[in-house]
Amino acid sequence: MASPVALVQGASRGLGLQFCRSLLRRSPTAHVIATCRNPENAKELLALQNENRNRLDVEKIDLALPRDIQGVAEKVKESGVSKLDLLINCAGVLHPSGRGETSLRDVSIEGLSTTLTTNAVGPLLMAKHFAPLLSKGSGEYGSKAQSKPHAGVIVNISARVGSILDNKGLGGWYSYRMSKAALNMATKNLSIELARGRSPVICVSVHPGTVNTDLSRPYHKSVPKDKIFTAEYSVECILKLVDGLTMEDTGKFLAWDGEPIPF
Amino acid sequence: MASPVALVQGASRGLGLQFCRSLLRRSPTAHVIATCRNPENAKELLALQNENRNRLDVEKIDLALPRDIQGVAEKVKESGVSKLDLLINCAGVLHPSGRGETSLRDVSIEGLSTTLTTNAVGPLLMAKHFAPLLSKGSGEYGSKAQSKPHAGVIVNISARVGSILDNKGLGGWYSYRMSKAALNMATKNLSIELARGRSPVICVSVHPGTVNTDLSRPYHKSVPKDKIFTAEYSVECILKLVDGLTMEDTGKFLAWDGEPIPF
Repeated sequence: MASPVALVQGASRGLGLQFCRSLLRRSPTAHVIATCRNPENAKELLALQNENRNRLDVEKIDLALPRDIQGVAEKVKESGVSKLDLLINCAGVLHPSGRGETSLRDVSIEGLSTTLTTNAVGPLLMAKHFAPLLSKGSGEYGSKAQSKPHAGVIVNISARVGSILDNKGLGGWYSYRMSKAALNMATKNLSIELARGRSPVICVSVHPGTVNTDLSRPYHKSVPKDKIFTAEYSVECILKLVDGLTMEDTGKFLAWDGEPIPF
Repeated sequence: MASPVALVQGASRGLGLQFCRSLLRRSPTAHVIATCRNPENAKELLALQNENRNRLDVEKIDLALPRDIQGVAEKVKESGVSKLDLLINCAGVLHPSGRGETSLRDVSIEGLSTTLTTNAVGPLLMAKHFAPLLSKGSGEYGSKAQSKPHAGVIVNISARVGSILDNKGLGGWYSYRMSKAALNMATKNLSIELARGRSPVICVSVHPGTVNTDLSRPYHKSVPKDKIFTAEYSVECILKLVDGLTMEDTGKFLAWDGEPIPF
């Protein structure tokens, strides 16, 4: 039986770091490739690597630099890794200022561009460069009980506030909402292109819930305490969801508990 | 009775140029401000201006340059224009190459960034800088028969292929589809922010149909001839649609014939 190989993009902290921990813990044979913008500053990720020599690789990818992405894809192949079973795109920014726009006054081309690049363009470029390896996956993630077996799985971490239909009350957060809507479209497009051929790849957008991470922490005052998940809980829910995925699910926008979210 | 004032962004050709023509023709007192990236090369627009001295202003706006947008907003106010009844964001690019991506192979950060800036970021920045004038509009466009009167109207020219739900068949056109999904989210957010207060602004995304313009011309072979609209027909349909808009419609994504399109 082949060992599972997963790549977690945006792995220095928050959900990404937790995905690395959980994937390593769930399977003693799993190989995880973790990427982040500044590995040298990613102390917790480096500590995890120390505990998991030979099972956890850490690579530098700045999503704004396509040559980083392409370089890591080539390096992974050259290192003898012949397939990828799971790609999780985790990196996300609410806004470069750390605060989502509350009104048009806060909207700027810099905030929009940076947020769109990190949250929507970057994940798509990751999919582009790792699709060849994903199409060689052996279906180690996702359900094996299906008529049309899949090779790999792409999980794009999205957000419920990226639902245009669901955006009825507060509005605001222009950059973040627009980037997640664009990401959901990227997921849908990927699901169509990567369903073709004999080695299809399942592609989903997932809302992780409101998680206790740096991104959402400034806003926790307005959320009931029991609605704020630990990263560990959110990741366990998402990995359980991934366990059940089939080609029937590709292109969907799902919450952590499997509930479909409208676009 | 106040004269209607409209601003058409992306007015050098295609739908934008036709909007200028039709708006001037429909109302003998209408004042139109037309913006485009290179007015000096916009021969047809300059000819139209020659025929409509004092009624048609032509200004230079490159959507990638926020200072252009802010500068024109200030210039318009300083020139004595005290309100805006209609803003139409028309400029759109399929992809800088002129060809939408048919597969991931064609996806690049440059293509994505340029398309997102022109199709989604630019229209939002236009709304930001012209919202104060739109909130002083006198409801000259849109329905006057409504319980909650509106001041101005924003029409963002979107596209059916920007519907994530509707994207089931071909996929592809990553940059264009993602940018239009992001634009639809911008429209929704604008509709919420600009509905507040005593001078609300109606904001809609509109699919103009497949129109005989430079953007779509390379693809007309695959479209039945009777489904390809002239710019004149599409613009007449959209202006008729605008005539009937009320605050009930704000935030919607509508086709040229008024049919709602899912996100």
